[in-house]
This record gives sequence, C-alpha cells and structure tokens, in this order.
Amino acid sequence: MRQDVIQKQKAAMAAAGLDVLVAISPENFAYGTGFVVPSQPLMRWRHAICAVNSDGKAGIVAVDMEETTVRGKLPDADIRIWGEFTDKPMNALAQLISDLGATNGKVGLEMNYLPAGDHDHLKRLLPGAMLIAAAEIFDQLRQIKTPEEIDLLQRLSRISDTAIAASFDAVKAGMTEMDMAAALTRSVYEQGAEHFKLMIVATGPRSELPNVGPTERILEPGDICRVEIFSIIDGYHAGVCRTASVEDPPEKAVEIWKNLVECKYRVLDAIRPGASAKQVYEIFLEKFGELGLPPISFVGHGIGLHLHEDPYLGKYDDYTLEAGMVLGIEPLVYQSGHGFGLQLKDMVTVTDTGAKLLSDSTDTDTLYRIG
Amino acid sequence: MRQDVIQKQKAAMAAAGLDVLVAISPENFAYGTGFVVPSQPLMRWRHAICAVNSDGKAGIVAVDMEETTVRGKLPDADIRIWGEFTDKPMNALAQLISDLGATNGKVGLEMNYLPAGDHDHLKRLLPGAMLIAAAEIFDQLRQIKTPEEIDLLQRLSRISDTAIAASFDAVKAGMTEMDMAAALTRSVYEQGAEHFKLMIVATGPRSELPNVGPTERILEPGDICRVEIFSIIDGYHAGVCRTASVEDPPEKAVEIWKNLVECKYRVLDAIRPGASAKQVYEIFLEKFGELGLPPISFVGHGIGLHLHEDPYLGKYDDYTLEAGMVLGIEPLVYQSGHGFGLQLKDMVTVTDTGAKLLSDSTDTDTLYRIG
Repeated sequence: MRQDVIQKQKAAMAAAGLDVLVAISPENFAYGTGFVVPSQPLMRWRHAICAVNSDGKAGIVAVDMEETTVRGKLPDADIRIWGEFTDKPMNALAQLISDLGATNGKVGLEMNYLPAGDHDHLKRLLPGAMLIAAAEIFDQLRQIKTPEEIDLLQRLSRISDTAIAASFDAVKAGMTEMDMAAALTRSVYEQGAEHFKLMIVATGPRSELPNVGPTERILEPGDICRVEIFSIIDGYHAGVCRTASVEDPPEKAVEIWKNLVECKYRVLDAIRPGASAKQVYEIFLEKFGELGLPPISFVGHGIGLHLHEDPYLGKYDDYTLEAGMVLGIEPLVYQSGHGFGLQLKDMVTVTDTGAKLLSDSTDTDTLYRIG
Repeated sequence: MRQDVIQKQKAAMAAAGLDVLVAISPENFAYGTGFVVPSQPLMRWRHAICAVNSDGKAGIVAVDMEETTVRGKLPDADIRIWGEFTDKPMNALAQLISDLGATNGKVGLEMNYLPAGDHDHLKRLLPGAMLIAAAEIFDQLRQIKTPEEIDLLQRLSRISDTAIAASFDAVKAGMTEMDMAAALTRSVYEQGAEHFKLMIVATGPRSELPNVGPTERILEPGDICRVEIFSIIDGYHAGVCRTASVEDPPEKAVEIWKNLVECKYRVLDAIRPGASAKQVYEIFLEKFGELGLPPISFVGHGIGLHLHEDPYLGKYDDYTLEAGMVLGIEPLVYQSGHGFGLQLKDMVTVTDTGAKLLSDSTDTDTLYRIG
C-alpha cells in the first residue's frame, strides 16, 4: 500500500465527513496500491477495490483469477478474494466496509465508475450505510503528484520522447509508416515501459487525421510525419507527440511549427503556482491566433493515472495551478489547409517557481528531420 | 446502423416487454453501429450511446469531440451531440428516450456498465420511466454471430496467427524478445488490423508467467516461447497463442505439446450445435488430466466484441452450443514443473454440423521451430 496516498485520503475523508472511501476504478485502485490489476481495465466485471477508513486502515477486494498477483504485490494487506464464477464482488466489499466500521456509516464511492447494478446490490447489503458520491476526492488529490510520481512521469516522458526520435531515425524516404511503428514500439519496450496506448503514426496527407495508427504508406521527400505515443508503467501515462519532415520540409510547415514552438514557450512561461489555467489558455490563443486557424478548446490537461485528468487548460472551467501538477501541453494544427497537420505535445510539471519540461530528450525548436 | 442487429434487438425487446433498449458500453454501441468511438474505451465519461425502440427506430448520443467521426460513420442516423465541458450525456439520452416514445415506458439499460451517478441522473430526468437491467439481452444476442461477423473474426484470427508465425520466423538464438515483438506488431498492422491488445512474448523461464510483454531477454537454444496477441478491427477481437522452441525443444515440452494438441482436437470434435459446453470441458479434462497438472477452470469462452464473453466452456455454468458461436479455445500449461509453460489458443466457430477452425494459417500439430 502507498502510505503517503492513504494519509492524503484520510485527511480528505475527515474534511468530507466520510467513514470509508472506496476506490474501484483501475486508476484509483492503482493510486492507493501502486499497481494495476492486469485484467481489470480489460474485463470490467473483474472488480479490484481498495477501501480506506478514517483511521487510515485499508483493505483490498480482488477477483480469484488475480489472487496471486495481488497477494504478490501486497503481501501484508488485508485482502478479500471473490470468485469470478461463484460469487459477487459487492458481497466482499460490503463485508470489508463493515469490518472497517462503517456498516451504518458514510461511504464515499466513485459514482462515475461503479456500475448501477453493483450500486443497487451494495445498497441492499448495507441498508444502514449512506453511499455518497466521492470521485471528486480522488480527482482532487491526484492533481498534485508526489516527488516519486513526478520521477516516474519524467522517466515515462523521456521513454516516449526518445522512442519517437528513434522511430524518426530508423527510417528514410522509401520506407513505411510500419517501419516507424516497429522502431517506435521496440524502443518503448526496450526502455522499460510495460505497455503503451494511442500510438499515432500519421504521415503525408494522413498527418491531418487526429488518431490514426501506422499503415504501409511509403514515406516521400517533403512528407510531414506526426507521431505520438503514451508509455505506461504501473498505470501512469506519459504522452508525447513530435512532428518531423522527410528531408526538406514545406515552407508553410516551418512557419506553422515556429508558431507552435512559440506557443509552447509562452505556455511554459505562464505556468506557475497560482496561475489561472484559463489565462494560460488565453495566452496560448493570443499567439496561436496569428495562424488564423481554429484552435482546440484546451491547450493542456492533467495527466498521470489517467490519459486526461484535471486540471484542464482550456476555455471552460478554470483551475488555479499548483506545484506538483503534471500537465500534457499540446499546441497542434490538424488541418493546416496545406495537406498536412502538425502537433507538439510535451509533458510538464509545475514547480515551486514555474514550469519544468519532463519530455526533454529531443530538441523540438526546429522540425525534426528524417533522412 | 447495422439493420440486422437492430432487428434482432427489436425481437428481443418484444420478448422482454421493453419499449427502448439502450447500448452504452463500447462493445454494445459497436454492436448496433458497426464501429467503436475511438475515445470511449479510453475516457469512460465520453459516453456514446445507441438506443433502439420497439419499432426498430434508433438514435445515437455522442460527445462533441467525436461528432465528426460519428457523423462520418452514420451519415443518415438521428444523432444527438452533448458537450464534454458544457453538458451532461444523460440530458441527451433522456431526450432521445422520450423522442423514441418511452417517457413513461420500460427502458432496458446495461446496469453492469452505466455508472451509478448517470443512472441516478437519468431516473431524475425520466421519473415516469421504468429503468430495467437488460445487459443480458446483448450478451445473449452477441453469442450468435452473423456470417459477416464470422468473416471478420476469421480474418482477424488469420492476422493474429500469421503475425505470430512471422515473429517466430524473424528471430533465432541470440536475438531478443523485443525482436519478436517488433516483427509481431509490424505484421499485425501490415495485415490491416486497427490495433491489438494483450501482446504476450514470454520466452525461456518467462514462458511460465501468464501475462507478460516482451523484454530484452536473449533467446537461447532449447527455449520455449509463448506468444499471444489479440488483433482488433471495428471492436472485434481475435486472440491466438502459439508456442515455439528455439532450435530443438526439451523432450518434456514435446510430450506436453502432444497432449495439448490432442486436447484441441478432442474439443473440436466435441463442439457442435446442441452440445453442452460443460461436457466439452469435461472431455478436455479427461485428456488433459493425463498430464497430472492442475487445469484452468475453463478451456474456452465466447469472443467477439469483448475479449471474454458468453458462453464459457468450463466447470461452472453450462450453456448449449449453437451454430454461429465463435469461441476461443485454449489448452495451456503455465507451470509444467520443468521451467517452461506452453499454450495453444485457437479461434473456432460452431457450424451447422460441428466446429470450424478460424485460426488456420499455421500448422500447430508439432511445436513451431525457431532457427
């Protein structure tokens, strides 16, 4: 168990008047325990649960198919196993909540994850308990990363960044997107990532498409290549996107890239504890607006145990930035009107005095050159 | 929209007395529409919904970030867009349900997916409607695949099968698991898969570990190599696992493999319309038992829009097999007691008279040989 996180949860529970706080999504289970149960994100009925009470006492509910993994990771924890084909997970959770002293207490739940059917079952099992929506507690806590979390996100940022550069270096005109993908995924694993999500390899006219994987398309001189990947360890994500040209880039691409780079620096300059996330977005808009192209509705968002999490740096809700936040920052143009798109996505952490780039392996001041 | 699926849903709704049936999980949205909204499985708040009424009239709810994709795929559909940062999806769903004539009707929902918070919101918006658990309707319908679904699963099975053989053929002693992974993923994309899940590359002593990705481990003569991958198109999955030896295999591995191959043939022989899934499992156990090793609790399961779906061929619930079912069949030994594990996972469909192998590209009668 991650005692620092449990202590934070304990403090948040006191403030919210909760007796037990239940983590049931893969990301919040990982937040308290430090790992993801492998099959939980793939088979959502295989609930893995971490519950903490107001004394900081914690217990785990896991499915029998994952018992060895969970016991291996948490040898000293209070673990309740339920049988995938012979039992229901809410029986084990209700028992755990009772054992944590909240049979008739206030129980905080992730109402944006817990399926309605399980919620009804839990209500029937614990008629005296008050089941309360508490996902926001996790959302709030997870915004501020610990030094260990930032170290891991730095490592992951460099893995993604380095892997993309490796994919650019592995190819030249005449080779294919698939060749880039092979070098990219190889590098991600080679550097120790457990897996990856959202690989984008979009070259030539395909660079205009937001989320596309690699094809057998052959690289030609002058192509613009957008490559993105999220590397993952212990449930933490770092997403980086880079853009390259095959040999000499089109002049217009150089011009747009210059704007995106300047956007990045202005955003980095504006990020500091106390800054308004909305104002950072407006500072981005000011520079980006010079392109005369439609902006996306946010230039950044929190990232960590989820691909997208609070805070957003965008046109809607506002947030006050704080030290320890980790943000994905992504000035981008999908449709430039010139048959290509460009994207510059970096990982950044808010320090005590400003912003620090986590994806710092590759120089992005000029368009990367392939061949 | 997939009219054949809508018609099936209509018939099932009549039998269950429902006025509207709502698909809200990625797999059941894809079942009615033929595609997966890209970000829905990654960001679960981005609900994508397909609702059908008892006249077979259908409507779609989608998030603004995916509007162009959804309208592009379903140009003629009734589509309701909700704003990720400015609205709540249940507002759009409640309106759609009303427009489908069920303001005060019986509405079937996936209570094992719909989050409790959304369920509560929907109840408040439609106080006169009866919200009823109906996930089983989808589970039941999806068990029997259409000829088009079987064609796609055959194609995906061959992609996975061929890619694994390519990964074996790409390496020899002295090369690494990462080299296998590079060839494997390359081949999967090259053959047209949109993406993949659950890549296992487990060689030498690592072949004993159930779910592990590739590392820099160097292949040595005599190694046993377990490689699995699920190829994916339009939300459909085909998982195949093969086992190879680097050069000459250990004698014990040949012996165990012979048993697993015989298990596969006995299972294929036993599968036919009308057969009991539990009896097929018992037929497997009879042969597998000769090894004196602990069996897994099922030898197969349905597969399609989800990695694991009904029916299971195992020791718990029983099912009667029907033509059109597609099954993953997987005799396996993780811990042989000899420092290696072996697995033979195939895709099979139930025909009018028996079973047909879908993953039929590679001869698995003997252990595949690397080098």
